[in-house]
Amino acid sequence: MPSLNDTLSQFKITPGRLVKTIHETSGKFGAKGKWGPLDSDTGVCRLALSDEDKGVRDWFVQELISLGCEVKIDEVGSIFGIYPGKDNSKPPTAMGSHLDTQPTGGRYDGILGVLSGLEVLRTFKDSGYVPNYPVALVDWMNEEGARFPMSIMASSVWAGNFSKEEVYNTKSISDLKPVSVKEELERIGYLGETPANYLQNKLAAHFEIHIEQGPILEEEEKEIGIVVGVQSYSWFNVYVRGKAQHTGTTPLNARNDALLSCAKMLVKANEIAHKHNGLCSIGTLRLEPSSINVIPEYVHFTLDCRHQLDEVREKIIEECKSEFQKIAEAPNGSSTKEAKVEFELIYTSPAVHFNEVCVSCVEQSAEELVGKNKVKKIISGAGHDSCSTSTRIPTSMIFIPCKDGVSHNFEEYSTPEQCENGYLTLLGAVVRYDQNRSE
Amino acid sequence: MPSLNDTLSQFKITPGRLVKTIHETSGKFGAKGKWGPLDSDTGVCRLALSDEDKGVRDWFVQELISLGCEVKIDEVGSIFGIYPGKDNSKPPTAMGSHLDTQPTGGRYDGILGVLSGLEVLRTFKDSGYVPNYPVALVDWMNEEGARFPMSIMASSVWAGNFSKEEVYNTKSISDLKPVSVKEELERIGYLGETPANYLQNKLAAHFEIHIEQGPILEEEEKEIGIVVGVQSYSWFNVYVRGKAQHTGTTPLNARNDALLSCAKMLVKANEIAHKHNGLCSIGTLRLEPSSINVIPEYVHFTLDCRHQLDEVREKIIEECKSEFQKIAEAPNGSSTKEAKVEFELIYTSPAVHFNEVCVSCVEQSAEELVGKNKVKKIISGAGHDSCSTSTRIPTSMIFIPCKDGVSHNFEEYSTPEQCENGYLTLLGAVVRYDQNRSE
Repeated sequence: MPSLNDTLSQFKITPGRLVKTIHETSGKFGAKGKWGPLDSDTGVCRLALSDEDKGVRDWFVQELISLGCEVKIDEVGSIFGIYPGKDNSKPPTAMGSHLDTQPTGGRYDGILGVLSGLEVLRTFKDSGYVPNYPVALVDWMNEEGARFPMSIMASSVWAGNFSKEEVYNTKSISDLKPVSVKEELERIGYLGETPANYLQNKLAAHFEIHIEQGPILEEEEKEIGIVVGVQSYSWFNVYVRGKAQHTGTTPLNARNDALLSCAKMLVKANEIAHKHNGLCSIGTLRLEPSSINVIPEYVHFTLDCRHQLDEVREKIIEECKSEFQKIAEAPNGSSTKEAKVEFELIYTSPAVHFNEVCVSCVEQSAEELVGKNKVKKIISGAGHDSCSTSTRIPTSMIFIPCKDGVSHNFEEYSTPEQCENGYLTLLGAVVRYDQNRSE
Repeated sequence: MPSLNDTLSQFKITPGRLVKTIHETSGKFGAKGKWGPLDSDTGVCRLALSDEDKGVRDWFVQELISLGCEVKIDEVGSIFGIYPGKDNSKPPTAMGSHLDTQPTGGRYDGILGVLSGLEVLRTFKDSGYVPNYPVALVDWMNEEGARFPMSIMASSVWAGNFSKEEVYNTKSISDLKPVSVKEELERIGYLGETPANYLQNKLAAHFEIHIEQGPILEEEEKEIGIVVGVQSYSWFNVYVRGKAQHTGTTPLNARNDALLSCAKMLVKANEIAHKHNGLCSIGTLRLEPSSINVIPEYVHFTLDCRHQLDEVREKIIEECKSEFQKIAEAPNGSSTKEAKVEFELIYTSPAVHFNEVCVSCVEQSAEELVGKNKVKKIISGAGHDSCSTSTRIPTSMIFIPCKDGVSHNFEEYSTPEQCENGYLTLLGAVVRYDQNRSE
C-alpha cells in the first residue's frame, strides 16, 4: 500500500481555499456575534431548516453540481453529493457532517467537516483523480438539535434509529410559533425523495472531521486526534411541580417552591457528576407562572448526562433520579405529598467504538502528515452524525484542536493550519480506504 | 358616637349579593383554572389592561353610574366612583382595591375589596342613606405588577411615588410582543383626563378590605384581621453571566455555568431568609442560549426580599449581594475572572404603619360585629394599594381569612360568611369615619 505522502504527491493541493470557503459561507449564511476586529471574527447562527440553512444548502448543492457530482436529497432533507469513481456499481465511501449550528454557534462545528469534504472533492477534480469507487459527501440535516430538540436527527433516521414520522412531527422549540420539521422541509424546498434509509441509500463507510470542542489536544500540543470512540449520553426532560403561592404572605415552611427544589436538584446533579467523573448539565429551564411575586408552581428543565462507559452513565442517572425524588418530597426539609418530579427520556446515545480499519486509515494518514508525536487517540465527548453511521457501516473521525476547547460559542476558533491538517488527513484517509476496498 | 350595631340597624342589608356579584363577574371576565365541581370553582386570569380587564371595567363603570356616582378615569386608568354626601365641598372618604389579577389568580385578591366597596354603595342606595361627605370607590390600575412589572402601579402615581411617564413607558413582560402601559390604556379606552395626583384629585382617607393571603387568621380561628401595618419589601433584577460551552466536551472544572451559579444563589438566598426570619423568593428566571447541550451563558432572575423591619430587610439584601458575588466568582469552587453578577433595584416598599384613627374605626366595627375574641391585629405580608395611599392620607385595611392561606393561585377561597363579615366591617368603618369627620 503506498504511503500517504506518495498518495498526496499525486494531488494538486490549493492551500488556503478551505479556510477561505469557511469564512465566505459563514459571512453569507448566518454570521452573528462579532468578537474580534476581522470580518471573519464572528460566530454563526444557522438553525436547522431556517432561511440561513436554506441559503447555505442552495450554495452547497450548486458547488456539488459544479464538481460533477450526482446530488440526492433524502426524505429528511440530508444532501448527498456523489463523486463518480471507476466502478460505480458499489456504494460510495462517504465523508459527512452538518451545516446547521447552535444559536450561539461558531464557524467550525459541523461546517469544517462538510467543507473539508468539499475541499477533498475539489482536490480530486483539480487533480483529475478518479477513485476506485464513488466518494460521497453528506450534509446531514439537524445534527445540533437546537431548533428541533432531537440531535443527530437525519443520520439517525438514515441508520434506522429514529422513525421518519417521529422526525416529521418534531416541533421547533426556538420559534415563537412552533413549526414541524416536515413543514419546514417543505417551506425551504428540501423534502427529498431519496429513501432516508441505509439499506436503500447505501454508503460503504463514513469519515468525519470535526473540531475537538474540548481542551485536550490543545493542552497536550497535539495536531490531530484519532477518534476511537464517543462517550455515551442520555437526555431527559425533567418536570417539577410545586404550588403557586404569594411570595409576601407564605411562610418559608408553608411553601412548595418548584424553583427552589429545582435549584437544589441542579446543585446535586453537579455533585453526582463530579463523584463519577462524568458530566451533568442543564441547558434549558422554563417556569410557570413566572411572576415576580408568585412562588413558581411548575418547572421544566432538560438534563444531559454523559460518561465514557454506558454503565457509569446509568449509575449517574439512577442517583439523579433518587436524589431529585428526595428533594421534591421535602422542598422545605419537611416532607410533602404534593411535590412531584418526573423524568422523561428524550434520547440515549450509547458509547461508540469506531471501526478498526477506518481508525487505522486515519491514524496512518495523520502520523505521516504531522508525525507520531503530534497525534493522539481520543474519545469524543460530544455526539456526532458518525455515531449513527457507525451503527451500520465502518466509521471513524478526525479531530483538530480548537482554541481553549471553546465550542457552541461565537468565539469558537481553529487556526488555518489546524483546518488544513484536518482536511489533508481526511483526504489521505479516504483515498487510503478507497485503495483498501480495491485490494 | 353611635355603636356599629346602631349604625348597621339603619341599613337595609342584602345578604349574599356581594358573593353573587363576585362569582358573576369572575365567571364573565377571565375565569380560568377549574379546581372543583361548581361553576364558581375556578380562579381568574385578568391581567391589567387586558381584554378581560376592559370587560370588568366597563361593567364596573355602568354599576357606579346606576348607583348615582360621578365616575372619573384618571391619567393612568384608575376608576373613581364618587357617591354624593350632604357636603360635597370636601374630599370623599375612599374605599379601594384592584380588579386585576395574577396569571394564576383567584376570585378574591383585590376583587373582594372593590366589590365589597360596591356592596357598601349599593347598601347606601337601598337604604336611602346619605353620608355627611362623599364616599369614593376606587379601582386602582395594575396592583399586581404581573403583566407590567411594577406592582401597586397607579396608586403609587396618585401618591406621587412613581412618575406618570415612568408608568406610561413600562412594557409588558407576559406578551409575546411587549406593549406599553400607555398603548394598552389607549387601546381599551381607559386613558383618562383626571389628574393622577393626590393634590388635584383629593381623597380624605382610604379603607381597603382584602383576603389575608396567609395562614394566620385561619390557624388562630379569627374572623377579622385589623391590619396595623405592612411588612417592607424590595424587588431586584439579578443578572448572572457565565460562558456558553458544549455540555459534552467541557470538563466540569473548565466551566462557567451561569445556571449552576444561579441555582447556588437561590439555595443561599433561602438560607439567608430563614436565618433572619424574613422571606426571599425568586418568581421569574430566564436563560440564554437555552439549548439542551449548551451550558447557559446568561441568566436573569427576579429577587423578592421581605421583612417586617426595614433594617432587617436591608441586612438580608446585603448578605444576598455578598454571597451571590462569592458564588459568581467561583462557579466551580475555583475562582474565575469572567463570572459576573449584577443587582438592579426595581422597587422598594418601606414598612408601613397605618393611621390610628382609621385602625380604631376598623377595630370597633369588627369587634362589635364578630366579638373581641374573633379579631386580631396583624401585619400584612403583601403590599397593597393602601401602602401608597397611607403615604398621603389616613389609611387602614381589613383582612378576612382565606383557605390554607393560599393566594395567587386558582384555588384561592374565602367562605361567603367570611366575605360578608368583611363587607359589614368595611361598611361600619366607613360610616364611622364619615361620622368622625363631622364631629
